[in-house]
Amino acid sequence: MNNDYYCIIMAGGVGSRFWPMSRNSRPKQFLDILGTGKTLLQMTYERFVGICPEENILIVTSRDHGDLVREQLPDLLDEQLLLEPMRKNTAPCIAYANYRIKKRDPEALIVVAPSDHLILREEEFKQAILKGLEFVRGGEALLTLGIKPSRIETGYGYIQAANGQVVASDPDFRPVKTFTEKPDYDLAKVFFESGEFYWNSGLFIWSLKGILHAYAKYLPEVEHLFSEKERFIGTREEEKHIIEIYRNSGNISIDYGVMEKAENVYVLCAEFGWSDLGTWGSLYEYLSKDRNNNLVSGDQVMLYDVKGSIVKLPKDKLAVIQGLENYIVIESDNILLICRKDDEQKIKQFVNDVRIEKGEQYI
Amino acid sequence: MNNDYYCIIMAGGVGSRFWPMSRNSRPKQFLDILGTGKTLLQMTYERFVGICPEENILIVTSRDHGDLVREQLPDLLDEQLLLEPMRKNTAPCIAYANYRIKKRDPEALIVVAPSDHLILREEEFKQAILKGLEFVRGGEALLTLGIKPSRIETGYGYIQAANGQVVASDPDFRPVKTFTEKPDYDLAKVFFESGEFYWNSGLFIWSLKGILHAYAKYLPEVEHLFSEKERFIGTREEEKHIIEIYRNSGNISIDYGVMEKAENVYVLCAEFGWSDLGTWGSLYEYLSKDRNNNLVSGDQVMLYDVKGSIVKLPKDKLAVIQGLENYIVIESDNILLICRKDDEQKIKQFVNDVRIEKGEQYI
Repeated sequence: MNNDYYCIIMAGGVGSRFWPMSRNSRPKQFLDILGTGKTLLQMTYERFVGICPEENILIVTSRDHGDLVREQLPDLLDEQLLLEPMRKNTAPCIAYANYRIKKRDPEALIVVAPSDHLILREEEFKQAILKGLEFVRGGEALLTLGIKPSRIETGYGYIQAANGQVVASDPDFRPVKTFTEKPDYDLAKVFFESGEFYWNSGLFIWSLKGILHAYAKYLPEVEHLFSEKERFIGTREEEKHIIEIYRNSGNISIDYGVMEKAENVYVLCAEFGWSDLGTWGSLYEYLSKDRNNNLVSGDQVMLYDVKGSIVKLPKDKLAVIQGLENYIVIESDNILLICRKDDEQKIKQFVNDVRIEKGEQYI
Repeated sequence: MNNDYYCIIMAGGVGSRFWPMSRNSRPKQFLDILGTGKTLLQMTYERFVGICPEENILIVTSRDHGDLVREQLPDLLDEQLLLEPMRKNTAPCIAYANYRIKKRDPEALIVVAPSDHLILREEEFKQAILKGLEFVRGGEALLTLGIKPSRIETGYGYIQAANGQVVASDPDFRPVKTFTEKPDYDLAKVFFESGEFYWNSGLFIWSLKGILHAYAKYLPEVEHLFSEKERFIGTREEEKHIIEIYRNSGNISIDYGVMEKAENVYVLCAEFGWSDLGTWGSLYEYLSKDRNNNLVSGDQVMLYDVKGSIVKLPKDKLAVIQGLENYIVIESDNILLICRKDDEQKIKQFVNDVRIEKGEQYI
């Protein structure tokens, strides 16, 4: 294992699409949403333990969730945990981690990963990441991981790969032509059939030098905020300066701020069974169902004439459910959600209504 | 108010059709199922306070539910509460109360009433009962209350009234021709259209002398069990003798044991807005719904595209429910039931399965 490999796990998300299971106080990455006995964060962390030295794995999360991270990863060293004072999207998050890594190894090679995605084939994932880390060694290439689409999907952003071999022996590395937002169905169909488009996985690989150079070029104001406070990073005085930096920083994503603008961007086309687990439906796709195609968790659930549904209830709750087809029935923390699986995009609206009518404590 | 009026409220039922709201430990009569702030037993008791002297109202229930009765009717005198050591249906229950009443007033006129029915028009109910009590005075007539059907209903037993005026000035009293079990739809339709059939309300009115005579004639073995222990009834030694009586008594209903066999049976045809509240559906019929025809209780329930459904959740439970039409969603005591309203007759089967698979504690 190479000592110059680093990993930044971004664990600052607060998605509401898994409400009521995910809550502001316990976002998706902190949940055992797959029912494996481990949370998504724990699974992500363990995945990278096999890729880079454990102490080189940094987790960036909101200050509010620091205790949750420590609870779920009790062996984590203090210097592995970076707490953001406020949410400013991924560009400041990655910049913060970059400056921490810079103190330890200016030659670092870095993989940036979301904390709440599903990887089905861990070994293939590992090989792709290792290949990517060596690809960026000694240069300033910005590499994204693109997932070969397995279906027409409107829920993901896409990366269009240009023609042209980047590495003589490996056709999976290709220059990026464009990044695109989530397409509508017709466009997604075109993307799927073209063979040129890949799902944007949110996984990035680069050298520290490469990404710092890109910030300096495309996000100079963010770069400046950090560079002028560089001497405080990793010291006892860091916290107050980080608060100031974040207060002054714009809310900006790495995709918009860097990837869509930079020229030396490449995609590593991969296939390792990936999902961003963005919705109950995507979870449903990837987990094993019972013979009526129900995804059930809860020890005391009795189903009659229920098909194609997701039922997730507290372990001790006895439930008799009859006559539902393609529904979601979730209870978590004394909040019950019942809705049609096909209407799950409405959950966002429900959560918003709950916030307005019942109060923030239910969110 | 006449001092010879007595009332026997039968509160020994353990129906499972309102599961999970009704449980073995808290059957339907002990629930505020209408959401009025009073349980059905409390409402029944108060109804008769206006009809006979309060101390003449006897409540017969299972020994297991004595504390529940005392809790819900804290002013009840000890002698008003009769505890059955085991369930032997209505004939022994009424016999027991008869012998208690006999100690106090051999000339008593008695109304026997279920504890868990709905009466919408209390004043009309009262007038019918009073009229009935005077009808049985000085004779041995056995009077039932028949409810004029308002719809084709397969869920009730029926009483067929014979032609023939019983009281010159009051055509509502008529001789009974037959008692019938719950009919199928076609037969229920014939009943409804004939005008001869009335719903069997389970309300009976008779003189103590009349009913004792009927027991002696049609249920001599039950009559004998009580009469040979008569001297212990109402004494400190009653309990152990009641246990013996019940142990030796058959399980037999007053309808089958007496009413269907006796010849001096009459029906008082009445209309006071009655339901036996036998099912969630019957409850749904009688209570006021929201503009989407939903019957909702629970302060924190948010419905989207939900119609014709019954939603009853604990007060503190936040629920977002979307896309259900004609469903029942009930949670009580950490048990959740979701089923189609039209399939509610299956609840009995569900409860039986729960008993077998999960254990008696959930029933």
